[in-house]
Amino acid sequence: MKNGLLAILILASISLMCSCNNKAPDISQKTSTIADPLSSWNEGASKTSIIDFVTKTTKEGSADFIPVADRIACFDNDGCLWSEQPLYFQLAFAIDRVKAMAPEHPEWKTKQPFKALLEGDMKTVMAGGEHALLEIVMTTHAGMNVDEFSKLVKDWMATATHPKTGKHYNEMIYQPMVELLHYLRDNGYKTFIVSGGGVDFMRAWTEEAYGIPSDQVIGSSQKVKYEVINGKGELIKLPELNFIDDKEGKPVGIHQYIGKRPVFTAGNSDGDYAMLQYTTTGSGPRFGIIVHHTDSTREVAYDRTSSIGRLDKGLDDGVANKWLIVDMMKDWKVVYPQ
Amino acid sequence: MKNGLLAILILASISLMCSCNNKAPDISQKTSTIADPLSSWNEGASKTSIIDFVTKTTKEGSADFIPVADRIACFDNDGCLWSEQPLYFQLAFAIDRVKAMAPEHPEWKTKQPFKALLEGDMKTVMAGGEHALLEIVMTTHAGMNVDEFSKLVKDWMATATHPKTGKHYNEMIYQPMVELLHYLRDNGYKTFIVSGGGVDFMRAWTEEAYGIPSDQVIGSSQKVKYEVINGKGELIKLPELNFIDDKEGKPVGIHQYIGKRPVFTAGNSDGDYAMLQYTTTGSGPRFGIIVHHTDSTREVAYDRTSSIGRLDKGLDDGVANKWLIVDMMKDWKVVYPQ
Repeated sequence: MKNGLLAILILASISLMCSCNNKAPDISQKTSTIADPLSSWNEGASKTSIIDFVTKTTKEGSADFIPVADRIACFDNDGCLWSEQPLYFQLAFAIDRVKAMAPEHPEWKTKQPFKALLEGDMKTVMAGGEHALLEIVMTTHAGMNVDEFSKLVKDWMATATHPKTGKHYNEMIYQPMVELLHYLRDNGYKTFIVSGGGVDFMRAWTEEAYGIPSDQVIGSSQKVKYEVINGKGELIKLPELNFIDDKEGKPVGIHQYIGKRPVFTAGNSDGDYAMLQYTTTGSGPRFGIIVHHTDSTREVAYDRTSSIGRLDKGLDDGVANKWLIVDMMKDWKVVYPQ
Repeated sequence: MKNGLLAILILASISLMCSCNNKAPDISQKTSTIADPLSSWNEGASKTSIIDFVTKTTKEGSADFIPVADRIACFDNDGCLWSEQPLYFQLAFAIDRVKAMAPEHPEWKTKQPFKALLEGDMKTVMAGGEHALLEIVMTTHAGMNVDEFSKLVKDWMATATHPKTGKHYNEMIYQPMVELLHYLRDNGYKTFIVSGGGVDFMRAWTEEAYGIPSDQVIGSSQKVKYEVINGKGELIKLPELNFIDDKEGKPVGIHQYIGKRPVFTAGNSDGDYAMLQYTTTGSGPRFGIIVHHTDSTREVAYDRTSSIGRLDKGLDDGVANKWLIVDMMKDWKVVYPQ
């Protein structure tokens, strides 16, 4: 992809990502009954360090014991809990929405960036920069109430498929990370998503996919307006940014929504650096994870030069910061649920 | 109080209220073991209607059954979970902070509204309008990190006392409402605070007082900024408004923070009208409560003309909207914990 894409796609994460409301494998029951709660992780230092941390922080009398009320664990979503290539899944949703809405918008035949998008000319779309992307997202994510938007996302998730894998997007969640979420919860941790993606987009499917309820999903958001329509109170999505939950916005979002410094955080890109730093520079036991995309066979290998999910500073500083760098190729038995 | 106070004190709720970190009676254990989970409620239509709603919505097979994931209950704080007279407790905190900070601010001897406040001339302070109140709140609630602010609130709660009752402010929570919170949670409801008060002020004490964790407290907020200080990530409170969680802002806050329409909501003033309306105009079983301050002996009697917690439209429409109007004098055996 072109260089200019980088800024654009970071901006895209303002409200972009993917989702699912059906087909998510029911892992919750399985992990509770099997002997190894992290069975999709290969034996080795990564798996051991996670188990050691959870064990020592949950053992009464341990010097590193953390009370249940403080067991706050935060996870990025794109590239950390599910895939994000070749472009944020929420952007795929937005593009599909433009196509679906086109018949009602004949003016798009001559209006950019819609004209280019409808002609499949993504190069021109991307050349429009942040402004073009934002216009696409706001056009497709506003002008309806929040329930209507949620239904659109769920319907899309049930039908759309990924261009490379052919899977539904909600089938491209990471099995080892889903197990990690369950393992933490089984040990009294409260799990949150803290993502640059759009919060309304995520909430349509994250509860089913990850077992994380909507109020524990923090993301970028648009403003909504309260209106009484035919006697019923409704919240209408406005084409206006409310909050960007990325980079330094992540610790800010954590404070505004959770109100406590996490003790455990997982991310995969430099957009998660501040959140990892905020987590692990607190006092007492802390754990930071960077999921490193090393597997070109089962997923996609990318880091320092990727326009999506770029991981550069995190790779430089991760070891010194004592963050666990998870090697997807070596550490994971499987990537997606079977 | 003067008329102009009304707008001021509503504005004050942007960031005002009270708090506590010790002395909160440990009701959690008691209510789980006693036979009547609402023992501080007098027998009668109010108590019966609450129990009927919870029973029918939690009984498998009932036509009104609500899945656990959708059992969202929201509570206003000031005047609903604790007292709010003669002025929002958070404003009492802010005033005490001005006094404590005065030695470092000799310029306040000649600068309004601080000069008047330090001289005990509240009439002049209030004559300064919203601007004066906002300046007092922002001055006392910013310029430090979030942990330092939380400690100030906790320290104040442990020492300050209410001018009329002589109680610590955290002892002025409503015992019947605390029981209601526990009763709902014991029946699978997730309880949230949705208050015009400052979220950082509340979180310093609401977990202990009500058993509601910080991430389930929604309130008005200031902006915070992420900074790395001596290698440690910190969040600094800025003297700038982020969100006002009052009136139509309450359903907006509910959406941004919870992402689901509640099925149960309690409030006490017209500031809660939109939240009650949003809740009870959803489909399926819904329950709305207005706590009506009718008890001039054990608390304070006020409604339509009060500058704090004014209840006017809610009284007019409450019955037609099928909201339960709780009569504090008749419905409650006790007001505060013994």
